[in-house]
Amino acid sequence: MTDNRDIEQRLARLEERTRAVEDELEITRLILSYGPLVDSGSAEAVAGLWERDGVYDVDELVMTGQDEIAAMVGSDRHQGWIAGGCAHFIGAPHVTVNGDEAVAVCYSLMVLNGAAREGGPGDFRVRRATANHWRLRRGPDGWRVTARTGRVLDGRTESPELLVSGIPTE
Amino acid sequence: MTDNRDIEQRLARLEERTRAVEDELEITRLILSYGPLVDSGSAEAVAGLWERDGVYDVDELVMTGQDEIAAMVGSDRHQGWIAGGCAHFIGAPHVTVNGDEAVAVCYSLMVLNGAAREGGPGDFRVRRATANHWRLRRGPDGWRVTARTGRVLDGRTESPELLVSGIPTE
Amino acid sequence: MTDNRDIEQRLARLEERTRAVEDELEITRLILSYGPLVDSGSAEAVAGLWERDGVYDVDELVMTGQDEIAAMVGSDRHQGWIAGGCAHFIGAPHVTVNGDEAVAVCYSLMVLNGAAREGGPGDFRVRRATANHWRLRRGPDGWRVTARTGRVLDGRTESPELLVSGIPTE
Repeated sequence: MTDNRDIEQRLARLEERTRAVEDELEITRLILSYGPLVDSGSAEAVAGLWERDGVYDVDELVMTGQDEIAAMVGSDRHQGWIAGGCAHFIGAPHVTVNGDEAVAVCYSLMVLNGAAREGGPGDFRVRRATANHWRLRRGPDGWRVTARTGRVLDGRTESPELLVSGIPTE
Repeated sequence: MTDNRDIEQRLARLEERTRAVEDELEITRLILSYGPLVDSGSAEAVAGLWERDGVYDVDELVMTGQDEIAAMVGSDRHQGWIAGGCAHFIGAPHVTVNGDEAVAVCYSLMVLNGAAREGGPGDFRVRRATANHWRLRRGPDGWRVTARTGRVLDGRTESPELLVSGIPTE
Repeated sequence: MTDNRDIEQRLARLEERTRAVEDELEITRLILSYGPLVDSGSAEAVAGLWERDGVYDVDELVMTGQDEIAAMVGSDRHQGWIAGGCAHFIGAPHVTVNGDEAVAVCYSLMVLNGAAREGGPGDFRVRRATANHWRLRRGPDGWRVTARTGRVLDGRTESPELLVSGIPTE
């Protein structure tokens, strides 16, 4: 027969497991929201995915803090991508939660409409394929990005190393 | 010590949380099944993802009801894509469940084999990148699509707006 | 009032449901780890995703056992892709768990940097879009692949059939 001590332990274990599942799904949704937010020019909402002093480090630019991230979204360069037709296609992330911290890695493709590049409209090109590494932390308002690093997969060893560094070894 | 009233409340809360997780995963599987079904020409099964009078609204065509959706799959145009080699590559969806209703947004890429277009075989092209917005409802047989809207990301503001409209603001 | 027999049944049901969710997420992570591992040339870790005598069957090659899979990763051909810049972009998998066995299907895109092909650097091409079918089994150390089959989506009916064979019919 089940006694209350056993029930209490099983409940606590289930609550812990369910929390871990919810964390993984919440982080996945956060990462998948990046594309819709950035492609629609939602500068404040993009920046709000990060902690206030979070870092977004891409090949050509290191942004420190929400203001610099929002400024990138508002820049002429980024607004040009939007005007021409652009998809920041983020691949399904591989998420590893460890208490109140987490790491995620994913590929991303920047896909441009013909009108956004030299060619004619009606056809799309992959401008770049990128390795992404995300560090996240749980705060009072849920998960936020502390650091995202992106490196184009152009043959440099650091780019795939960034991806594999987020895959736990057994 | 844990009493039965407390246990009952924790069990009920866990059942609710687990249901929410299962809903998110079931909707994700439903959306991810679209590509395999449509690329294999499974017309009835594609249509069965929608409610009987569900709507599928894409740029060039508005389909109302399962029969019109099935007819699209059986059309010469769609069969031509299949014969040439085609991938309806659906990105991981961002799913938001609200009781018996849900919204999901995702990118999709239509990728064509060389033989399916003007070029030579052995190389693939991205014919289009599309913003997708899905409305779903839980019915007696599980989740079904009530309305899916797709707009090519060709620079029109409505396309990224469609994506961001499915991302909850805090 | 809730009695202990009812509580026991609800706990057992929740444990079962949570296990099913965790299985689906674990298999998703396993499949999503393939890209980072193969693009970084982590030959042993790639092979370790499979059971010892697991099979990886692609159009041009059937690999049987972990040694042959590791050898593919170490081959001059694969190392050439890495050196030039390569993304094995694996789409979000549709996973169906059935006890200690599972099936998953997904699309994948092999995306090459300009330097890895005839063209110039700074632009990427989709070399191929592939249908993937995974069989997995739960063992003493968690889920492992027993057989993965990949077929390029070049118009052959077997390629989309492979995808749809992994989608349960109702």
